[in-house]
Amino acid sequence: MSLVVVGSVAYDGVETPHGRVDRMLGGAATYIALAASYFTKTRLVGIVGDDFADEDTRFIASRGIDLEGLERVPGKTFFWAGKYSPDMNDRETLVTDLNVFADFNPKLPESYRDSDYLLLGNIQPELQRNVLAQMKKPRLAGGDTMNFWIKDFRVELLSTIAQWDFLLINDSEARMLSGESNLKRAASKILAMGPHTLVIKRGEYGAMLFHRDAYFIVPGYLLEDVFDPTGAGDCFAGGFIGHLAEQGFDLQAGHIGRGDLSRAVIYGSVLGSFCCEKFGVERFRTLTRAEIDARFQEFRAFTSF
Amino acid sequence: MSLVVVGSVAYDGVETPHGRVDRMLGGAATYIALAASYFTKTRLVGIVGDDFADEDTRFIASRGIDLEGLERVPGKTFFWAGKYSPDMNDRETLVTDLNVFADFNPKLPESYRDSDYLLLGNIQPELQRNVLAQMKKPRLAGGDTMNFWIKDFRVELLSTIAQWDFLLINDSEARMLSGESNLKRAASKILAMGPHTLVIKRGEYGAMLFHRDAYFIVPGYLLEDVFDPTGAGDCFAGGFIGHLAEQGFDLQAGHIGRGDLSRAVIYGSVLGSFCCEKFGVERFRTLTRAEIDARFQEFRAFTSF
Repeated sequence: MSLVVVGSVAYDGVETPHGRVDRMLGGAATYIALAASYFTKTRLVGIVGDDFADEDTRFIASRGIDLEGLERVPGKTFFWAGKYSPDMNDRETLVTDLNVFADFNPKLPESYRDSDYLLLGNIQPELQRNVLAQMKKPRLAGGDTMNFWIKDFRVELLSTIAQWDFLLINDSEARMLSGESNLKRAASKILAMGPHTLVIKRGEYGAMLFHRDAYFIVPGYLLEDVFDPTGAGDCFAGGFIGHLAEQGFDLQAGHIGRGDLSRAVIYGSVLGSFCCEKFGVERFRTLTRAEIDARFQEFRAFTSF
Repeated sequence: MSLVVVGSVAYDGVETPHGRVDRMLGGAATYIALAASYFTKTRLVGIVGDDFADEDTRFIASRGIDLEGLERVPGKTFFWAGKYSPDMNDRETLVTDLNVFADFNPKLPESYRDSDYLLLGNIQPELQRNVLAQMKKPRLAGGDTMNFWIKDFRVELLSTIAQWDFLLINDSEARMLSGESNLKRAASKILAMGPHTLVIKRGEYGAMLFHRDAYFIVPGYLLEDVFDPTGAGDCFAGGFIGHLAEQGFDLQAGHIGRGDLSRAVIYGSVLGSFCCEKFGVERFRTLTRAEIDARFQEFRAFTSF
């Protein structure tokens, strides 16, 4: 099964209590694709400038990720810099230079259009809708969004997610999107907007899944050292859709249920937790599928009673 | 099996986004005992003034709780009032009138001393130690504490918990007690202080159990309406020790393990969640054991994958 991932490919500057890196590979699509690449054939759609380093292209490609959809244009690659609070639960954005990403208008290569799964990273809702329109007939499509689109592009966003199978957002976004502070009520309202599946990410506290009338909650993995949480939510998304794609699940055939989706949430949690163990994408240089599966079993061990 | 519960019996004034009650039955020992009473013979030790209403005594007694250890002295009962933030994750204390509780010096009735289990609510560490000294040979003993004792009575507290089997505290208290912001490291340090079992309560995010080298994490129950979180942590403690007492677990016989303690954490979570459904102790006027066991099964359903 094949997966298309659309979103930002960027350079990040990050400061956490554990250190600081001025410029390193980042971007939502990068993290999502790297995480998903452990499970399924992954195809990336993004845009970078002519400053994008060959070694970064090579690293992404080394994970078997198809880069035909990574556009390279004159100018500079999207740059973001931020600084985390001492407990790393908050971060302050220091720099957002959209650069070539400002004109990102994702076009799917012909070879991508019959892919089975689509994961839309956080970009303008209308662009997300245009991407879905370019796909032939994906088994499952969905994605992420953020406070900015919820607040200022609500109409566009609602018509976009109405077409999605799943939406992956964090708890404050779920509250903002639904206008409900209680997450159970928030989830009911969001499911009524279209998606049959909602995943609410809660950072260190884990994640919740809502699928029709069923729900599932998992606590976060207990890391002894969180070096850098940048990209953890995107890696969650990559692990989640990666598992569903690997299993070949779809809704039409009726063989996707709360149990399958819950295990996808665990794979998402596993990938998100590994992401935090090193700065940026560094953990993915050594991470193996065996480590991923071992941590999946750890989740079983520390949550069963 | 029998359980002794020691701590405050009080009147509370509470304001939450759902309403306000000027004066209602409260206090840590009240909540702990009510929750534990669904599982085991429960004996309360506390102090009240001559304003303590007969109907409140009758209500506590109606749950089969032994009140021989509830001292009644001239003066007023401990009164606390607080107001919760809109999301109910924070609260502001408006009034703390210790009244007769200021001179609380718990004495166990002779009939209590051979009880099998001891749960010490949050009181001065030296008083907690004196209570344990009055017990003959409990199978398990432990309790709660708070930031005030951790900060200003550290030496006394450390010598108190060194004698305990288990400590039940919240996440910020665990960080303060250990000096570690990471909860895994914090737990290791606290277990090295004496208790073989540590439970860290995380409010709406659930709870964590650490027992020797093993750990267990459970998310919080997803309530659609939280009317009043007052007493939820104490009800957690009551459900936790209640289950252990009902099963007759002890460490000497070697038949207590991570699994047993995990199920006790679930019963704690169940009782804490019911507590939030109405103001004060109101939910305990109608709560049945069948409801408790049904919610225990719900926990299995929404956490298994």
